[in-house]
Amino acid sequence: MQAPEFLAAHAAEAERAIAQVLDDRASVVPERLLEAMRYSLMAGGKRVRPALVRECYRACGGVDDARVLPAMMAIEAIHTYSLIHDDLPCMDDDDVRRGSPTCHRRFDEATAVLAADALQALAFELLASADIEAELRCELIRRLALAAGCQGMVGGQMMDMQAEDGSGIDLMQVERIHLHKTGALLCWCCEAGALLAGAGSDQLDACSRYGKAVGLLFQIADDILDATASSETLGKSAGKDAAQHKATYVSVLGLVPARELAAEMLELAIAAGSTLGEGGQPLNTLAQYIMGRDR
Amino acid sequence: MQAPEFLAAHAAEAERAIAQVLDDRASVVPERLLEAMRYSLMAGGKRVRPALVRECYRACGGVDDARVLPAMMAIEAIHTYSLIHDDLPCMDDDDVRRGSPTCHRRFDEATAVLAADALQALAFELLASADIEAELRCELIRRLALAAGCQGMVGGQMMDMQAEDGSGIDLMQVERIHLHKTGALLCWCCEAGALLAGAGSDQLDACSRYGKAVGLLFQIADDILDATASSETLGKSAGKDAAQHKATYVSVLGLVPARELAAEMLELAIAAGSTLGEGGQPLNTLAQYIMGRDR
Repeated sequence: MQAPEFLAAHAAEAERAIAQVLDDRASVVPERLLEAMRYSLMAGGKRVRPALVRECYRACGGVDDARVLPAMMAIEAIHTYSLIHDDLPCMDDDDVRRGSPTCHRRFDEATAVLAADALQALAFELLASADIEAELRCELIRRLALAAGCQGMVGGQMMDMQAEDGSGIDLMQVERIHLHKTGALLCWCCEAGALLAGAGSDQLDACSRYGKAVGLLFQIADDILDATASSETLGKSAGKDAAQHKATYVSVLGLVPARELAAEMLELAIAAGSTLGEGGQPLNTLAQYIMGRDR
Repeated sequence: MQAPEFLAAHAAEAERAIAQVLDDRASVVPERLLEAMRYSLMAGGKRVRPALVRECYRACGGVDDARVLPAMMAIEAIHTYSLIHDDLPCMDDDDVRRGSPTCHRRFDEATAVLAADALQALAFELLASADIEAELRCELIRRLALAAGCQGMVGGQMMDMQAEDGSGIDLMQVERIHLHKTGALLCWCCEAGALLAGAGSDQLDACSRYGKAVGLLFQIADDILDATASSETLGKSAGKDAAQHKATYVSVLGLVPARELAAEMLELAIAAGSTLGEGGQPLNTLAQYIMGRDR
């Protein structure tokens, strides 16, 4: 399935803005560190996260696109830092990401650790200095720190590492891992968009439900792709989950039930998106793309 | 030289508060992750940073001790995360820290990477949810992210890594490394204390100057200790700088001129502390302790 056009547009905007932030620091940051940050930030990818922020903002009635740009940049910085650390030899030990050498392979491990650490700090800096109400900045930072930290993404990554050596993992545990590992940040995107639009509690709730469903859909689709696509299409090592005896939706459920579960999540996402009226249409398109993407 | 009593009192208070925060999350964070975070946070140490926050706050007329506690906890979380990553095999490759196994030796590398990542997020969460004015929360977060990120601590760490293989480093470069690597965060402590007290620009400036001088003093004293103390006294491997051909104040200047430079920095710190009147007296005591400490 083709990516919706707005995905590329939001992605390009977030990328340009981040590139500018990095360029502006060239004289005050060690060159190699900045290069590693830029290398991983600009390595392409689907950029679903900034699109979720922007489209949830619009779906909740937001009209000032510039207002959400710092949140779009912040989430890409956090996401990129997490990929760099995930790829390290002591974690998933990946050599290739999006068709290119991973950060520690292109540079070295120390540089990769530091570039990611700096990206995490950058995310919070961007939010703290955004041109929006201070109360809202704090709320976005607080929620992002929770979504990214030990109760969210990092906690999920830890659960994932611990699950690798055990084969007795059930569906509930797989879901718990992914609600933390990928779901929390995707949810943050949707809630951040809603909060920036000054959404009422119904709209915020719809965005949360959409984010949660899309988060799980995203992971199930990822697991299906890893089990079925070639490395060439995927731009990263395929079949790695099975080789590493990782607990995935496919390993726990089998391929056909995993596809059925994905369809269920898509329905939930679309139900949530539809309560936002016509403005929620791009969110539904996005969910369909996440379901049908081939890499 | 004996540590001043208030250092231990502030340390104990910050430790208790952080331990409580971690304990409150026991049901929602993977046990091993939380254990690693607690292990490194509670590993002792001098706790100079929280004391700087509290004493600069008091020196600038602050009277509500509870108001600065989140900043004291946040800086310990950031400092601890940086120690965990610094000790990793791909960085300084240290087995011992404060007389105990380093985090990755006590647990494993993946857990250490993740525990530190979670601690960085926790620092920003603590500040974002502090019970102080939202504008001030944002300002503290923005300054902390700058001090900890690519323009500050992480940048300094990168310079330090790059300097390890070159022996042609001069005093200016050593100073540049440490102004970033340790100085930026120590400065943040002092400025955060001043800002939380609602300091005027003169007081804020005095705290900044004090922080900068104390930051360099701290590093020079560290380098002198590494060159002269035993591992037993130090609680970590001594003589490592020379073994690794690290550029230090001692390697660049020699021991006696390094001691003279430390004395100069002490004078600068005391001059800054004295402009704060009687309230600045504990800051001067602290600087003298940093100069004279034996571990």
